[in-house]
Amino acid sequence: MKLIRHGVKGSEKPAFVHTDGTVRDLSGIVDDITSELFVNGELDKLLEVDPLELPVVDLDRIGVPWVGAGKFIAIGLNYADHAAEANMPIPPEPIVFSKMLSCMSGCNDPVVLPKGSTKSDWEVELGVVIGKRARYVTEQDALSYVAGYCIVNDLSEREYQLERGGTWDKGKGCDTFGPIGPWLVTKDEITDPQNLHMWLDINGNREQVGNTKTMIFSVAHLISYLSKFMTLEPGDLITTGTPPGVGMGKKPFPRFLKPGDVITLGIERLGEQRQVVYEWDEKLIDI
Amino acid sequence: MKLIRHGVKGSEKPAFVHTDGTVRDLSGIVDDITSELFVNGELDKLLEVDPLELPVVDLDRIGVPWVGAGKFIAIGLNYADHAAEANMPIPPEPIVFSKMLSCMSGCNDPVVLPKGSTKSDWEVELGVVIGKRARYVTEQDALSYVAGYCIVNDLSEREYQLERGGTWDKGKGCDTFGPIGPWLVTKDEITDPQNLHMWLDINGNREQVGNTKTMIFSVAHLISYLSKFMTLEPGDLITTGTPPGVGMGKKPFPRFLKPGDVITLGIERLGEQRQVVYEWDEKLIDI
Repeated sequence: MKLIRHGVKGSEKPAFVHTDGTVRDLSGIVDDITSELFVNGELDKLLEVDPLELPVVDLDRIGVPWVGAGKFIAIGLNYADHAAEANMPIPPEPIVFSKMLSCMSGCNDPVVLPKGSTKSDWEVELGVVIGKRARYVTEQDALSYVAGYCIVNDLSEREYQLERGGTWDKGKGCDTFGPIGPWLVTKDEITDPQNLHMWLDINGNREQVGNTKTMIFSVAHLISYLSKFMTLEPGDLITTGTPPGVGMGKKPFPRFLKPGDVITLGIERLGEQRQVVYEWDEKLIDI
Repeated sequence: MKLIRHGVKGSEKPAFVHTDGTVRDLSGIVDDITSELFVNGELDKLLEVDPLELPVVDLDRIGVPWVGAGKFIAIGLNYADHAAEANMPIPPEPIVFSKMLSCMSGCNDPVVLPKGSTKSDWEVELGVVIGKRARYVTEQDALSYVAGYCIVNDLSEREYQLERGGTWDKGKGCDTFGPIGPWLVTKDEITDPQNLHMWLDINGNREQVGNTKTMIFSVAHLISYLSKFMTLEPGDLITTGTPPGVGMGKKPFPRFLKPGDVITLGIERLGEQRQVVYEWDEKLIDI
């Protein structure tokens, strides 16, 4: 099931994408797509409804496809080729950092550069949404704790991330630096999360190409691993690292985002995103 | 005003500590102490009530004194003496990392060590709670964005933080590693956040002593600084670093937490905390 939320930021309505491509309204059945739906089989109840009896939605703005994320955890250097282009060694265990929850935005919302930013960069990533409380779970069981998957553009300000001291978090959580969606695709549609093609274009030029099969640490490994450091709760989002092709690694010169750039990205079965890049403008953040 | 929330985890009731020391029930006036109260002078309305007309509360468990934190941001090495004991240079600008929201716990709740943890450590810190949306605010204006202050014990698993690769976040967000409170003390009671005495004992032995006047980067500086990397929202918590005396820095050998240890800590005008340390026991986390 491809869950979607649409409408004005903060007042999105729940819907889903039917197999015929139409978007069907769920607001008569659930108030919203919340993390509470992920537990106790509540999501399955939505499947019992006849989609053709639900109103068709005219899509306008698309929001983050669920509410209730309590963590936005990110994994660094999780594709061997990307580690090489970043001039960093392959990590012996997952590199964990955090994105601020306040950076989450709709998949087609503007990307607004921080004031004076000259080194903002793109990263297409597979996002994993937790569906069930996970503590010290085994790798073997880990995927049973997943609600579904989504695309994440893990935007990064490289100067803030790498040249301003401290951890990476400073350059990873800027407002609008976490476009999510368009859909939360429930796990029944993704039989193998380790074989999904992914890509990212800037102004129509292909910059990133990859496949989740080249991850160093699999989705199952990451869930198991993280669950030893903290409880993962329903709604928590883990973004799992990016394949090669980020701006920072371009030869002979790095290529960073500038106002007017158009970012498009996609992952097999999970849809596509499109963002226009703007210079700092507070009005664009609160749309 | 010393705001407090008490009762069973997840169902806490709002109250405050009157000047006569009694705790007075606020549940007839507000449903809960939420970050929404911090904006538009809603907190001030609570001051209009005659405290002596409110029922006295018999305190049982104390919870986190407000709900609605969307970020739990932490600052590293923000006291010159602590940087020295950690063998780290004084940072040229603030070191920013994240604590997971899921690590927040009541001020006297158990501290539960992760399975097999041998290097868990204490850190008494001044917590700053944001009261108004802050973006690119000046240092001069910064304190006007504060709702109030609280004690934070920024517990840390040093092996996870420093020896497992990646950023510090892995060792900072374990369940129960963020005791907060007992109170959220509104800023009108803290005329100078840069002159607060602080201390921490383990089993009655004084381990940390400090004063917020020796911070490298002041509260005002930190708010202004962070607001350039992200929007700070009402309810967000910033914990501002710890003075000397953490277990990791003890000579001739480090001293880490073990089951049965009792941690007591306090900050002038902000109250005291008391935690008993336990080995891993899932039941103790969900009290």
